[in-house]
Amino acid sequence: DAALKPRASDQPRRHPLADRNTNARLAHCEDAVKGRFEAIVPTLRKLSSLQHLEDFPARAQAIARDELGYTLPEETLTDSWVAGMDMKALYAHCAFKALTASVDQFARDIKEQREVVQDTRNFFLDCGYHAVNVSACADGRLKGLSRYILRLPLTSLTRNKAYRGTLFDVESDVRDWVSTELRRFREGVPTTADAGTRYLKIAVYHGSSSDPCHQGCAAHGSNEHKAVEAALERLNQFRQAIQNSFCCGASTDILMIGVDTDNDTIKIHVPDAKGDLSAHRYIDNAKLYADTAGLSTDGARAAVYETIRKASATTGWGAGQGEPHDGMRRLIANLLINNFSQIEYVADVYGDRYPDVGHAERFISVGDGFEEVQMRNIAYYAHLSTLEEGAPDMDVGIKIFKGLNVKHGLPVPIAIHYRYDARVPGARERVVDKTYRVRDAILARYPDLAAQGLLICHLSVQDLPTGSAMEELES
Amino acid sequence: DAALKPRASDQPRRHPLADRNTNARLAHCEDAVKGRFEAIVPTLRKLSSLQHLEDFPARAQAIARDELGYTLPEETLTDSWVAGMDMKALYAHCAFKALTASVDQFARDIKEQREVVQDTRNFFLDCGYHAVNVSACADGRLKGLSRYILRLPLTSLTRNKAYRGTLFDVESDVRDWVSTELRRFREGVPTTADAGTRYLKIAVYHGSSSDPCHQGCAAHGSNEHKAVEAALERLNQFRQAIQNSFCCGASTDILMIGVDTDNDTIKIHVPDAKGDLSAHRYIDNAKLYADTAGLSTDGARAAVYETIRKASATTGWGAGQGEPHDGMRRLIANLLINNFSQIEYVADVYGDRYPDVGHAERFISVGDGFEEVQMRNIAYYAHLSTLEEGAPDMDVGIKIFKGLNVKHGLPVPIAIHYRYDARVPGARERVVDKTYRVRDAILARYPDLAAQGLLICHLSVQDLPTGSAMEELES
Ligand SMILES: [Zn+2]
Ligand SMILES: [Zn+2]
Ligand SMILES: [Zn+2]
Ligand SMILES: [Zn+2]
Repeated sequence: DAALKPRASDQPRRHPLADRNTNARLAHCEDAVKGRFEAIVPTLRKLSSLQHLEDFPARAQAIARDELGYTLPEETLTDSWVAGMDMKALYAHCAFKALTASVDQFARDIKEQREVVQDTRNFFLDCGYHAVNVSACADGRLKGLSRYILRLPLTSLTRNKAYRGTLFDVESDVRDWVSTELRRFREGVPTTADAGTRYLKIAVYHGSSSDPCHQGCAAHGSNEHKAVEAALERLNQFRQAIQNSFCCGASTDILMIGVDTDNDTIKIHVPDAKGDLSAHRYIDNAKLYADTAGLSTDGARAAVYETIRKASATTGWGAGQGEPHDGMRRLIANLLINNFSQIEYVADVYGDRYPDVGHAERFISVGDGFEEVQMRNIAYYAHLSTLEEGAPDMDVGIKIFKGLNVKHGLPVPIAIHYRYDARVPGARERVVDKTYRVRDAILARYPDLAAQGLLICHLSVQDLPTGSAMEELES
Repeated sequence: DAALKPRASDQPRRHPLADRNTNARLAHCEDAVKGRFEAIVPTLRKLSSLQHLEDFPARAQAIARDELGYTLPEETLTDSWVAGMDMKALYAHCAFKALTASVDQFARDIKEQREVVQDTRNFFLDCGYHAVNVSACADGRLKGLSRYILRLPLTSLTRNKAYRGTLFDVESDVRDWVSTELRRFREGVPTTADAGTRYLKIAVYHGSSSDPCHQGCAAHGSNEHKAVEAALERLNQFRQAIQNSFCCGASTDILMIGVDTDNDTIKIHVPDAKGDLSAHRYIDNAKLYADTAGLSTDGARAAVYETIRKASATTGWGAGQGEPHDGMRRLIANLLINNFSQIEYVADVYGDRYPDVGHAERFISVGDGFEEVQMRNIAYYAHLSTLEEGAPDMDVGIKIFKGLNVKHGLPVPIAIHYRYDARVPGARERVVDKTYRVRDAILARYPDLAAQGLLICHLSVQDLPTGSAMEELES
């Protein structure tokens, strides 16, 4: 296990509001998770060079235990003298071992965060929000959004789902709004229906400051204007859908955040007093970080609120109708301050920007995704319920992995994962059927890769509550 | 237009509670709708024999106007001297014309029924139900379930969806329950949350008395026991899901009905005092009809209630825990009496049983289906959101139509139809995209048929409210 090791940084930055303890924990976590994936190829390469020795199986297991932390399936080693080791199968086996170990690690992490989770939940309620629904782009570089970029733990109030190009599912969000409201009316959870709290919908788009025309959002042709407009259109559609379908004061708040995937700095678009957003009214947190790094704790905090006030006073294209309500201002301030820590984290660990500005995903995550596994570039994510609807997403993923893996003879590890609701009888069985159906559809869509053993699927399901166990299915 | 013509019946039955006026209207409607489809082949056959005459286009249009009520696309007639008429395209054109005319007719019918709709709505509320959600098997022979077999108009309280083998979607029903409850809490519609009314879920299976082992429910291998068990399992799953997911008195009623598709007689399974159903505790309405046909109006009505009481006292396998509540008893009595009219209808018009005991569908209905078009054997229904999930249903439909149409050289008319919610911005556009996506998936799944022009698709969408206009899309 490795601890925080600053890898590159000429002048280590120190912001008065950055949380260096959490940064150290997150660096440790990133080292552990990525280390498990990075150890695979060197270890298999070493085994390959030994595979014709007589005592190979025993030596191989000793090496695997040492370098990977687990042993390999015995038959792949004992049979290797016949036709050589099945490296494709072994590679996929190890990738999925690394994945399940990471899932376990994040599940433990969530249990240790109980107090922070409770604080965050109370903070949302204090700001006047009984639900916080975040939809980011499915791009692998945003996979660490909650845990790293925004520093928001998964609470009972939050929902996170990612969609290609931030084109989130308005109908599904309307349903979530409906069931959230019903729980308030029936059970008074998390707030009673007359409490005047709101449902908050956040959309997160992204761009790349170092190579905006190639490393931005692929779904929008790396055109950040298009990415912003698309996210904003969906947000307005969602708010309008609720207003049209449910009379008498069915109000929701919307918020839009942009991420620079080079270094995880964010932009926050500030709603006006009517709740409306503008593509042109936002706070650039890279600038705010630089402007406030030399101040005292109190001075920096005051500067953050002053920046929000100034943003609300934007004139011209970005002009709005006054400041947002107090709760929204506090939420924005908190997100900006949280992101200071991540800006410092990236600078400490990687320097000016991530070394993997582009794609460096370890596997393709298909289905509902591993909500608890929050780490940049860990997976290419194809959020789909059927391949028929999600085929364009999957095609992009396969294309990326042809470059990353297939051209080196390595298979594409595909982890198909769906959630079910154990309270609904028969739900698990139906979701298991769906998992196999999607697997079959994927193998049928890429028959050449499948025939060469270059598509290897891992199937799992999980009950709804955050942190519940991952249940692996036979594949 | 033809009126009610008794076609076959040795001893015309007369039940004191049968509604002969409505029967006459329904017969007229059936004649009109089926007549439009039946006129197609003879008319095209006639045109075929004339297609090489010089004044063919004008003569053909005159015949079409006369026999079909509309003209044909001019270019199919003027070009016919080159390569002969494109009979496949013409056949599909006429089938879709018959379909759209029928949609219009049912939409008018619904407008004329306003008073009956209001009465039915009030009756449900009197029985203590604020929602009546009916799921039948998607079999074409149950397509007339509401309008003919049960004589229930589409009200604002009813939802109808059909699923192969009555395997309805529990998750989707839970969502409907949630939004129904929210409307009661927020708006007091149709009843306030404290009114003590219930959500009723009805499942409808089917069998064939004359040929039980071949003409029953194909999804269950024509095994009626399996069909009953499957419907009952889903009903219990739904009730349990609500109880598990929503605490404090979230109660629903369930009811199960069997239809003999030979003659539309029903069985009603009577819930006990706890709301539980049994495969073995039911009322056979064919027997009840025969037993009560000779009684007075009052006598027959009393006998219906007495039969419900007796069913509740069933001992042995079908034993339950007492009688259902008063509202449920009145609902059951009403359904039994409504069905008397349909029993008499079938006897009057067709005799002992329908001449088309098996498949005689006119087109394949894909998607949400034409809710308003309520008529037996008018369509084979593949209720699907993606072909990936619905491929088994679609394969069965294509197989049926290979027997009905393709072996005679006629194409399979496929009407793809989805509903959207106009209150949700962007919803229509997304549903239109889905309609085309499903069309493409169907053409890709049956490439041989598609290449021969034997799969012809009609695309349409419709806003949610019952009776709203059908919007045809370019295909
Ligand atoms: Zn560039
Ligand atoms: Zn993107
Ligand atoms: Zn038989
Ligand atoms: Zn059936």
